[in-house]
Amino acid sequence: MTDQPSLVADIGGTNTRVALAHGAQVQTGSIMRFRNADHKGLEGVLREYLHEQKNPALSGVCVAIAGPVEGDRAQMTNLDWLIEAPSLAKATGAPRAALLNDLQAQGHALDHLGPDALSPIVAGAPEPGNARLVVGIGTGFNAAAVLPGANGPVIPAAEAGHATLPVTCDDDLSLAAHVGGADGFASVEDVLSGRGIAATHAWLSARAGQPEHITPAEVMARLEDGDPAAREAAFTVTRILAVTTSNLALTFLPLGGIYLCGGVARAIAPWLGGMGFEEALTDKGRFSPLMRRFAVHVVTDDYAALTGCAGHLATQG
Amino acid sequence: MTDQPSLVADIGGTNTRVALAHGAQVQTGSIMRFRNADHKGLEGVLREYLHEQKNPALSGVCVAIAGPVEGDRAQMTNLDWLIEAPSLAKATGAPRAALLNDLQAQGHALDHLGPDALSPIVAGAPEPGNARLVVGIGTGFNAAAVLPGANGPVIPAAEAGHATLPVTCDDDLSLAAHVGGADGFASVEDVLSGRGIAATHAWLSARAGQPEHITPAEVMARLEDGDPAAREAAFTVTRILAVTTSNLALTFLPLGGIYLCGGVARAIAPWLGGMGFEEALTDKGRFSPLMRRFAVHVVTDDYAALTGCAGHLATQG
Repeated sequence: MTDQPSLVADIGGTNTRVALAHGAQVQTGSIMRFRNADHKGLEGVLREYLHEQKNPALSGVCVAIAGPVEGDRAQMTNLDWLIEAPSLAKATGAPRAALLNDLQAQGHALDHLGPDALSPIVAGAPEPGNARLVVGIGTGFNAAAVLPGANGPVIPAAEAGHATLPVTCDDDLSLAAHVGGADGFASVEDVLSGRGIAATHAWLSARAGQPEHITPAEVMARLEDGDPAAREAAFTVTRILAVTTSNLALTFLPLGGIYLCGGVARAIAPWLGGMGFEEALTDKGRFSPLMRRFAVHVVTDDYAALTGCAGHLATQG
Repeated sequence: MTDQPSLVADIGGTNTRVALAHGAQVQTGSIMRFRNADHKGLEGVLREYLHEQKNPALSGVCVAIAGPVEGDRAQMTNLDWLIEAPSLAKATGAPRAALLNDLQAQGHALDHLGPDALSPIVAGAPEPGNARLVVGIGTGFNAAAVLPGANGPVIPAAEAGHATLPVTCDDDLSLAAHVGGADGFASVEDVLSGRGIAATHAWLSARAGQPEHITPAEVMARLEDGDPAAREAAFTVTRILAVTTSNLALTFLPLGGIYLCGGVARAIAPWLGGMGFEEALTDKGRFSPLMRRFAVHVVTDDYAALTGCAGHLATQG
């Protein structure tokens, strides 16, 4: 570890957050937020940030991106930004630059989060040295296996939100037909995301003969007011999240624990206990005893992706 | 690479095949097959084999196991064998021993298979340097991502056959209820396996009012005779294999290609073209163009797992 700070950034669909870090420790006082729409590219954001910080010499730069990273580059899907590692190194003067997708960043954060950054959802004793699983629910859905490695965790990229929505009953088939939309294909992300919560509520309200289209935030607000349709939507999303998570768990065997992260995960965390998450998670027939070995936590730290970027530079450098 | 051969073995549910290899090249003339039931443990099998081979000095030993490997050990599920790497090194005199699950071994074989070991199923140009995906269908089902690594491929262990059977229509729900059996949970492996082919045929024959329970081999034989129920079973298994493979592909983005392997995959390979495999594989709505980037091959070499063991020792040694 050098005395020079590293530069870390978390690029979402709307905002980018930028900070300085020492080792795996993000300097919370240094965090600034930028509106993506105000900038033509990430280089401009980072240069403006560094100017505010009086242009410190950097040990490295690492950015987390809400979208697929191919090697040293990433094209934001809803934004006209092409992000390339060599260009970030040049713009910041850092000797090295790394790109992670946001789930990889969450995975790299796990070893550096304090106990108050995690909230337990399903009890269990994570077994250190084993695979872990991060499951992200926010604007979209994704997951990543966090595997033990010689130089910090190994986290293969994935796009798990694209897989077919799991269906286990007639109701699910009807939901799939509703959220699948014009192209007829219903993906995991069509239910497990902010817009998915809204779509699930719209499906339920249409089925009840009173079709309504409201925002995810309005669904959450009505849930707190005890609204029955919002409550049924929450039950449905909880059950589908549990089935999806258990399928990923039976695939990756995360004896080191399962970690839910992202804005929607943090928002729905208080529901999960009262809405049958654990029961649906462990309802896997002969695999139920195995499912009970996987502890589940929600990552409550909104800055975990920044910590992950810092941790990645610190452990793999 | 040393001049000393390595010892490689592929442990299935019934038989174990053992061979000597130089580098990643299995010496085909050295392959011997042993019935597991005749031996109390793998050490006895390997010692008997080495005795036949006049006890050569070995550079290493690597075995592929049809079941989960936890670190340096594996407990065969249908056999009373506990397999531990240190014990294998001691029994064979090899300076090092490695355990792989059978899908990891298939993944390690990919870089060492000749063109005649692969049969194309879905055309495409695999993009070297990207992730690949091996999908195994035999006694059970599993899959593994094969990721580019500095010292040969990195292949995380998985148990993908345990995930929920994908359901996309009413027929699938009915099939899931049939194959799920007493515990009510239908997994991928309940359809995509030898016994799954038999169970799918039994479901169709029961639905047609003429319930029959026949072996997977009998289903295959009737298919060749043009039997309508066997043909419908083959169509169903083909479609479920395509949906499952496409979900794994959308999760792992194997731009380096998809490789089907295992005894059932080799047996059904000739069907796949005529039974809509490619159409079902790419029927993913907005993700269909992405799916068309993934070339699919069947690994026709029955000894690929032995090659993978040899390749693992050669590249990671």
